[in-house]
Amino acid sequence: MGLPMAKRLIEAGFAVRGADRDSVACERLQCCGAPAFAGAAEAARDAAALLLLVVNADQAEEVLFGPVGAAAALAPGAVVILSATCAPERAAKIGQRLAAEHRLLLDCPVSGGVKRAAAGTLSLLVSGPAAALDAPRPYLAALGSRLFEIGPAHGQASSVKLLNQILCGVHLAAAAEVVALAERAGIDPQVVYDVVTASSGTSWMFTDRVPAMIGADDAARTAAVDILVKDLGLACTLGRGLGAKLPLANAAAALFEAAAQAGMGGRNDSAVVELLRDRV
Amino acid sequence: MGLPMAKRLIEAGFAVRGADRDSVACERLQCCGAPAFAGAAEAARDAAALLLLVVNADQAEEVLFGPVGAAAALAPGAVVILSATCAPERAAKIGQRLAAEHRLLLDCPVSGGVKRAAAGTLSLLVSGPAAALDAPRPYLAALGSRLFEIGPAHGQASSVKLLNQILCGVHLAAAAEVVALAERAGIDPQVVYDVVTASSGTSWMFTDRVPAMIGADDAARTAAVDILVKDLGLACTLGRGLGAKLPLANAAAALFEAAAQAGMGGRNDSAVVELLRDRV
Repeated sequence: MGLPMAKRLIEAGFAVRGADRDSVACERLQCCGAPAFAGAAEAARDAAALLLLVVNADQAEEVLFGPVGAAAALAPGAVVILSATCAPERAAKIGQRLAAEHRLLLDCPVSGGVKRAAAGTLSLLVSGPAAALDAPRPYLAALGSRLFEIGPAHGQASSVKLLNQILCGVHLAAAAEVVALAERAGIDPQVVYDVVTASSGTSWMFTDRVPAMIGADDAARTAAVDILVKDLGLACTLGRGLGAKLPLANAAAALFEAAAQAGMGGRNDSAVVELLRDRV
Repeated sequence: MGLPMAKRLIEAGFAVRGADRDSVACERLQCCGAPAFAGAAEAARDAAALLLLVVNADQAEEVLFGPVGAAAALAPGAVVILSATCAPERAAKIGQRLAAEHRLLLDCPVSGGVKRAAAGTLSLLVSGPAAALDAPRPYLAALGSRLFEIGPAHGQASSVKLLNQILCGVHLAAAAEVVALAERAGIDPQVVYDVVTASSGTSWMFTDRVPAMIGADDAARTAAVDILVKDLGLACTLGRGLGAKLPLANAAAALFEAAAQAGMGGRNDSAVVELLRDRV
């Protein structure tokens, strides 16, 4: 997600510097005309904003506050735009630590995947103090076509992202159940796809992921099983903390955990159908 | 569903007779210019086709083969269009009994609800021998905008309908989880609705049913909780018979069964959110 978003910012005329531990990713960004560094602190030096695309809150804290932390390198008053999917309380804690260093945090998970990142049509969810949103508005306009202002507190945008991820995980698991059941019942899953996508059972995930399950679109690269293990885990933890019943989210989480346990963590999330086919 | 479908057939110029145990339903049909009877056998007398909209296979068998059964009243060679959501093997059995009486069966579950029935834009799933589809084609064209020819065997269309119902039930249960969790997390569920319907977590059921859950569209009349109890029960039974794993479908079935147990069976299916709010 980082590279297509950086490209959008470069095309919009912003002065972009990038960082990635992976030297190939750095070379790709350099080919787009922006300097790239192995360490985030070098890229962040005196910058007005830092867009942070990492997997989780641990990585975000490491980048910001680790031995060569990027937070201290930023210009005073700079904004960190945090686009990892985090537990809400972790986002809030990062906001507090940044505030103590006179930097601002914008809690800013995104939705839409690599294709929409490249097109600049991501959905951006933001929460945080108004001051943290003012400066980044032009950047966000280059990245997304929809900006949802969730509320004034860090963690609120992360919470809404987790709610969306519950639905993604449940819908994907249900799609896999239906594909595997159709096959056992001797029904052509392509016919099921045609019917469902025109009927009340349809979902964005069913429409997007089932082609990969039934071999019609094998090459598609989507999110990995491990991402849903992480996101559903965070969502179920959020629910437990609030005393909420989440039978569907928990069932989906168990399915993706079983897939990861079976060694499928790095595969496309649609591969979870293999578990239900008894092929793993 | 029966009345709007009958109206479509009348408007298309077909000679329609109707039957319903409910005298109010009969009066409504008579107001549309078609004769109506309390008993299906009277309405079916010498007819070339019988469109049967009942809740389940038991009711279908009662209407067709009961003491005053409609099957024997039909013209020889007539087609019964069975639009109940049935277990596939029950649809197959009804087909066999009709064949023994020289009548044909078209397994024909529908999807789309009352609004699309009134507009003639239902999705129609059909399976059965080719001869059972030839004669009804003009009727089906008046009723639906999409005709999915699933296969030559009775039960195949019913199976696909059950697969769609798994998705409906799971998506609705997940929508209810997310609404209740948002409320506990202090997030405005209307904001969640706006984000999800523009993001990867969206589904037809989320879009259609969440407004009723959050009070934005209280008057909407959708299917009842009991319908999903029945359909998910049939789907889970189908899965067990085929050795399929259906963790999500089973979790959703348990939720709707709990709602029915709590006395909510006759309420709109979106009312299941009350269980997750701990208000029941």
